[in-house]
Amino acid sequence: MTQPAALHWLSTPPAVTNQEMRQLAEQRQTQLTKPPGSLGRLEEFAIRLAALQNTLQPGADRVHIAIFAADHGVAAEGVSAFPQSVTGEMIRNFTRGGAAINVLARALNASLEIINLGTVHDTQALAHVRHCHLGAGTANFVHQPAMTWEQLSQAFQAGFETTEHAQQTGQQLFIGGEMGIGNTASATALACLLLNEQPERLTGRGTGLDEQGIAHKITIIARALSLHRPQTDSPLDALRRVGGFEIAALTGAYIHGAQLGLPLLIDGFISTVAALTAEHITPGCKDWFIFSHQSSELGHALVLKALSADPLIDLQMRLGEGSGAAVTLNLLRMACKLHNEMATFSEAQVSQQSELS
Amino acid sequence: MTQPAALHWLSTPPAVTNQEMRQLAEQRQTQLTKPPGSLGRLEEFAIRLAALQNTLQPGADRVHIAIFAADHGVAAEGVSAFPQSVTGEMIRNFTRGGAAINVLARALNASLEIINLGTVHDTQALAHVRHCHLGAGTANFVHQPAMTWEQLSQAFQAGFETTEHAQQTGQQLFIGGEMGIGNTASATALACLLLNEQPERLTGRGTGLDEQGIAHKITIIARALSLHRPQTDSPLDALRRVGGFEIAALTGAYIHGAQLGLPLLIDGFISTVAALTAEHITPGCKDWFIFSHQSSELGHALVLKALSADPLIDLQMRLGEGSGAAVTLNLLRMACKLHNEMATFSEAQVSQQSELS
Repeated sequence: MTQPAALHWLSTPPAVTNQEMRQLAEQRQTQLTKPPGSLGRLEEFAIRLAALQNTLQPGADRVHIAIFAADHGVAAEGVSAFPQSVTGEMIRNFTRGGAAINVLARALNASLEIINLGTVHDTQALAHVRHCHLGAGTANFVHQPAMTWEQLSQAFQAGFETTEHAQQTGQQLFIGGEMGIGNTASATALACLLLNEQPERLTGRGTGLDEQGIAHKITIIARALSLHRPQTDSPLDALRRVGGFEIAALTGAYIHGAQLGLPLLIDGFISTVAALTAEHITPGCKDWFIFSHQSSELGHALVLKALSADPLIDLQMRLGEGSGAAVTLNLLRMACKLHNEMATFSEAQVSQQSELS
Repeated sequence: MTQPAALHWLSTPPAVTNQEMRQLAEQRQTQLTKPPGSLGRLEEFAIRLAALQNTLQPGADRVHIAIFAADHGVAAEGVSAFPQSVTGEMIRNFTRGGAAINVLARALNASLEIINLGTVHDTQALAHVRHCHLGAGTANFVHQPAMTWEQLSQAFQAGFETTEHAQQTGQQLFIGGEMGIGNTASATALACLLLNEQPERLTGRGTGLDEQGIAHKITIIARALSLHRPQTDSPLDALRRVGGFEIAALTGAYIHGAQLGLPLLIDGFISTVAALTAEHITPGCKDWFIFSHQSSELGHALVLKALSADPLIDLQMRLGEGSGAAVTLNLLRMACKLHNEMATFSEAQVSQQSELS
C-alpha cells in the first residue's frame, strides 16, 4: 500500500521568510547603544524572528506548547530504563501539573496541550488530555512496520491541528514536545534510515541505560534496520516503519507550522529527529526551525549537524517533554526585548565608534 | 605607602556554605518525576543555590543589579574603539532607561542601581545615579599607579555598600556590572599580574578593535606590566596599580557579598577579573560565585579556567553592564522552580527506573 490521499497536504511548500525585514532588523541592531555585535547570538535570534514574524518588533510572549504522547511496541525488547507504564503515568502527571513541562509552562505563561495518540494504559478518564487513540502503542518495528499508513496519516493530522490552532489563536511561537517510553530507540532508528547511518553512531542512554543496555539497544535497532532499510522508499515510509505516533504527530505539526509561517522552537533529540523528518518530507521547513538546545543524548549532535543547526544553549539536558525548548524561551524573549526597547545612538545622544579601529 | 586600615574588613573570611542542605537538595532532585540527571546543569545550579541560600526552596526572584562606572587614564593611549566621552554618555543612557541592562532589569523585575565612581565628564546633574567621585578617571597606568591607596579604599567601600544594601533588603542574588571606556585594557593588565601571564594571551577586541588596534593595546599593556610587575607585592597592590575604580568597587562588592553569604552572579570578562581579584585577596570568595556566561572577549576563557569556572551559557556576548549575567538569570529561576514545584515519583504515583539498566 502507498501513501494515502489524506497526506497530500504535505506537498504544500513552507512559507517564505521576509528577507527585507531581516535587513531592516540588522540595520536596527547596528543603531542600538552597544558596540556592534556585542549582544552576540541574541542579535542573530532577534533578527531571525523579525524575518520569520514579518515585523520589526519580534516577540515570543504568546507561545503554545503541545506535548504528544504515545507508546512504542519496541519497548517489549527492553530498550528503556523505565517500564512502559510510565508513559500513561506521566500523562496523568501532566494533567495534574507535576511534570517539568507543567512547571515551565506556568512560569512562562504559555498554553499547554497534552495529546495522547495511543498508550498501552488507557488515559480516557483523564480530563485535559486530547485523545486521538491510534492503537495501544505502535507495533514492534523489529518484526513489522510500526504503523499502518492510516495510523501515520491520523498522527500527522493530530500534529497539523496543533499548529493550525496555534496560528489561529495568534501564537508567536510553537513548542512541540514528546513523551513515550522507548522513543529514543524509535527516533534513533528513524535518523539512521534518513541519514544512512549505523546505530552505533547514534544510539544513546535515553532515560538512563548503562553500557550494557546501550549495547542491547544497538543490537535491537540494527536488527530493525536490516529488516526495513532495503524496503524503505521515502522519508515518509521510513517514519511509518520505525517512527512512533508522537514522532509522526510532531513531524506533522512542524510541517504545517512551516506552511503557516509559524516559528517553531525545537527541543532535544527526538524533536530534532522529527524536524529532520519534516525537512526530508517537505524541504524548506527548516527555515522555520529555531534550535533551542544541545542535549546530552549521543545522537543529537549528528542530527543537528545534518540540519546545519547551532542551538542556543547546552545545559546537558535530556528530559524531553519540550523542556529544553521551554527553558530556552526566555533567552528569545530577552533577545526580542533588547531589539525592541533599547535606545539608538541618536535617541540617546551617545557617540559612536571612533576612528581608532 | 601600604594598605590603609580602612581595608582591614577584607580579611574577614567568606561565609560557609551549607553542605547538609546541598545533600538534601541532591536527594530531592532524585525524587522528582524525571529520569535522574535529565535536567542536566539545571539540577546542579538548583542544588548549589539551595546550599548557598540555606534552604530547600532556593529562588532567584529578588535580585539587585549594581552597575559601577568610571573612566580610565589609559584611554589616552588609544586602547578603545570608542571615545572616552561614551562612559558619561552611557551613564546618562542608563538613567533614561535606554541601555541593554535597563531593558533586562525591567524584564526581570530586578532593582537597578548606577554608581559613578569618577568620570571625565561630570554626571552630577543626573538623577538616579549614586555619585562617589574619586577623580576624573584613574591615572594612566602606563606611567604611574592607576589609583592611590585612598582611592582604592573608597572604591572598595562603594562596592561594600551595594552588597550590604542588597543583603539588608532581602535580595536572593546580586549581579554586578561595569561601564568604562578602556576597562578591558585595565582588566587584562590586572589578570596578567595576578596570573603571571603575558598580554598576548589575554588581550582581546574590547568594544571592537581590529587586529592593528589589538596589537597596539598589547604593546601598551606590556609597557605597563614592565613598569608595575617588579613592584607589585600583593593582589591588592596589583588592583591599585592597573585596575579601575569600577573594577575595585566590583571586587569589594564580591568580597563583602561572599562574607555576607549572598550568591553572586558573575558577568563577563571584566567582572570575572574582579571575581579573580576578590578570590586572590580573600580566598574562599569563589564559593559564592555563579558564573553566568562565556563571553567572546579573548582572555575570558583563561580567567574562567583559573577560577575552575564552567559558565552556564555561551552566546558570544561581550557588552558588559552585567548584561550576560542578567540574560542568564531566568535559567537560574527555571532551575529553582523545577526543583521546588515538580511532583515527586511518590506524589505522582509514577513508576521509577526498572531493573533493566
